[in-house]
Amino acid sequence: MSAHTYKKLEIVGSSATSIEDAINNAVAKAAESVRSIRWVEVLETRCHVEDQKVAYFQVTVKIGFTLD
Amino acid sequence: MSAHTYKKLEIVGSSATSIEDAINNAVAKAAESVRSIRWVEVLETRCHVEDQKVAYFQVTVKIGFTLD
Amino acid sequence: MSAHTYKKLEIVGSSATSIEDAINNAVAKAAESVRSIRWVEVLETRCHVEDQKVAYFQVTVKIGFTLD
Amino acid sequence: MSAHTYKKLEIVGSSATSIEDAINNAVAKAAESVRSIRWVEVLETRCHVEDQKVAYFQVTVKIGFTLD
Amino acid sequence: MSAHTYKKLEIVGSSATSIEDAINNAVAKAAESVRSIRWVEVLETRCHVEDQKVAYFQVTVKIGFTLD
Amino acid sequence: MSAHTYKKLEIVGSSATSIEDAINNAVAKAAESVRSIRWVEVLETRCHVEDQKVAYFQVTVKIGFTLD
Amino acid sequence: MSAHTYKKLEIVGSSATSIEDAINNAVAKAAESVRSIRWVEVLETRCHVEDQKVAYFQVTVKIGFTLD
Amino acid sequence: MSAHTYKKLEIVGSSATSIEDAINNAVAKAAESVRSIRWVEVLETRCHVEDQKVAYFQVTVKIGFTLD
Amino acid sequence: MSAHTYKKLEIVGSSATSIEDAINNAVAKAAESVRSIRWVEVLETRCHVEDQKVAYFQVTVKIGFTLD
Amino acid sequence: MSAHTYKKLEIVGSSATSIEDAINNAVAKAAESVRSIRWVEVLETRCHVEDQKVAYFQVTVKIGFTLD
Amino acid sequence: MSAHTYKKLEIVGSSATSIEDAINNAVAKAAESVRSIRWVEVLETRCHVEDQKVAYFQVTVKIGFTLD
Amino acid sequence: MSAHTYKKLEIVGSSATSIEDAINNAVAKAAESVRSIRWVEVLETRCHVEDQKVAYFQVTVKIGFTLD
Repeated sequence: MSAHTYKKLEIVGSSATSIEDAINNAVAKAAESVRSIRWVEVLETRCHVEDQKVAYFQVTVKIGFTLD
Repeated sequence: MSAHTYKKLEIVGSSATSIEDAINNAVAKAAESVRSIRWVEVLETRCHVEDQKVAYFQVTVKIGFTLD
Repeated sequence: MSAHTYKKLEIVGSSATSIEDAINNAVAKAAESVRSIRWVEVLETRCHVEDQKVAYFQVTVKIGFTLD
Repeated sequence: MSAHTYKKLEIVGSSATSIEDAINNAVAKAAESVRSIRWVEVLETRCHVEDQKVAYFQVTVKIGFTLD
Repeated sequence: MSAHTYKKLEIVGSSATSIEDAINNAVAKAAESVRSIRWVEVLETRCHVEDQKVAYFQVTVKIGFTLD
Repeated sequence: MSAHTYKKLEIVGSSATSIEDAINNAVAKAAESVRSIRWVEVLETRCHVEDQKVAYFQVTVKIGFTLD
Repeated sequence: MSAHTYKKLEIVGSSATSIEDAINNAVAKAAESVRSIRWVEVLETRCHVEDQKVAYFQVTVKIGFTLD
Repeated sequence: MSAHTYKKLEIVGSSATSIEDAINNAVAKAAESVRSIRWVEVLETRCHVEDQKVAYFQVTVKIGFTLD
Repeated sequence: MSAHTYKKLEIVGSSATSIEDAINNAVAKAAESVRSIRWVEVLETRCHVEDQKVAYFQVTVKIGFTLD
Repeated sequence: MSAHTYKKLEIVGSSATSIEDAINNAVAKAAESVRSIRWVEVLETRCHVEDQKVAYFQVTVKIGFTLD
Repeated sequence: MSAHTYKKLEIVGSSATSIEDAINNAVAKAAESVRSIRWVEVLETRCHVEDQKVAYFQVTVKIGFTLD
Repeated sequence: MSAHTYKKLEIVGSSATSIEDAINNAVAKAAESVRSIRWVEVLETRCHVEDQKVAYFQVTVKIGFTLD
């Protein structure tokens, strides 16, 4: 039984397509600088609107990764 | 640098297909009566269930638009 | 005009595909043991991450069904 | 299966008698300007006090009605 | 001094009359299947509206009862 | 135009009859020691249960009164 | 003792100067279309940043006014 | 990669000794009726007081377990 | 290293000028009856409106002071 | 069946040892000035850090006691 | 239409003068290590008190900046 | 009187023994990369369960440290 320590980063991912894609983009971006990502917590979903339509979804997530 | 004033409306959009589609429907409906929609905040997601299956997604959003 | 009594169960559904699918899985699982499901409230969305990618979406829902 | 769009208004109803009556007054007032009210969410209950007694109950509600 | 264990159920009681009556109905329904109910926490009050009037109050409660 | 200072006390009032009566009891008790009560904010409603019925309503309120 | 009904609007006021000025701008804008404004509740404060400095404060408020 | 479904129960554990012991007691009690407990979320900590001292800690937890 | 005990009071300060001034007024009032004030937590900002303008800011604060 | 009135005080207890000890210290301090303490609600746990180690735990509690 | 990724940092800015100045100080400090700051969300306002007066305002903010 | 700027990190510490130990572990880990840690805010307590027993406590904390 291990007792890891984790850190959480707060990232906002965007996507013109879907909420899931915005989450994936946030994880992909975080993966460029941290290793061992373990989980995502979705905090907030907003949309940017242009020409009276949703232009892209903006999803704020907390990304948890192992510190040790 | 401009200092706009915005107003927010609270709308519940529905869709049998997806959460994103429910948000789009809420924006489309709001666009019938207000101009210059700028952003959407997703507040709450519920589903109506019929015959033991999700019949449609009901997403409550706040829609922000420029007042001036 | 009827005055029903309802009960709510808290279930976490998972899906490798989408948030909607995770909700559907939670409802399908609940439908194995309770009848007359009426609505779903989405409480929380998390993701399990493997190999630096979202492996599946985990959506916590409250499922409301008629008690009588 | 229909997919309605709803709007919510935030109203504060008052009553010297009861919380239920304050809610009823809020609905009655809203019914003067909107049709097809479907539900009420009670957000907050406050009381105005005069002469060291509750003078009236003030109940903030969200009133949901069909937009289409 | 005893150290009991309790469980909480989430029930929605309804009443055309009052919030208190809706709570009582929730407790009466829960009492059909659990013994030793000890307390109630009121979580949320909503109303179903018909013909532009409150048709019944729907009160979501948590019902705590002794497990042992 | 005056600029008063207020203080808030947190009181739990009880009543076997109704939520409104529990609030009134809280105000009456507070009025024994503070003057110039101005408003009440209802924070939480719980019930004590005996013999599988609600024995009394317990309503936690904040009571605001003028300090000067 | 009167028992008024109130409505609340959600407005975002902006100002390059101060939070108070942003609130004042929100009230001034609301006063163009509603009469009898009675109170303001501050919900959220955000800032727009340009050139690494706060360009203006954006304060979301609820504005309460008498309906009758 | 599996996609489990989980259920959460809300339990209040007690202990005269410590918060950790109250959590352990809640888990032990839940383990009598459900298998495959996976995690605990601590929601609320209260204490019962007797003779002006803490008599026991009461910790409300959500207990998550695999449904399938 | 000392282990102090603190108490918190909830005060509403007012000012026609600014939020900061309303906080200062709350602290000045509290300082008339308690010693050793250590910190302030701002809980809520409201405004009283007269003649369609903000008449004064009302800021609810918790004031922490050393008990021993 | 009695219908008591209770008051709540907000106290911050400290301890270099444990969260439970900080709660006990808060209750002991409150017991110097109020009688008939009945329960404690834990609101918030913070720690003061010195030399890169936790120097003491600071636990904010609400202490409920019988008023009559 | 671009789909940026953003990161949020949580900073506490201080000022003896005003809440706005504390926010500005937080942004200025963050600007030393991150580029492309886009917005600020104000989370919490506290004050440090000395000699029974507010010594400085401490404002916790989230600072959002473009990652790419 | 100084006006420091602080930054907060969100860390999850684990311990098979106690909540306090999990907090200490989070602080010790943070101390490897940041200096001048000043305080800890406990946000959330969860437990990992194995073989129907709590295997370790997972405590999410915000760690505040001086930036300058």
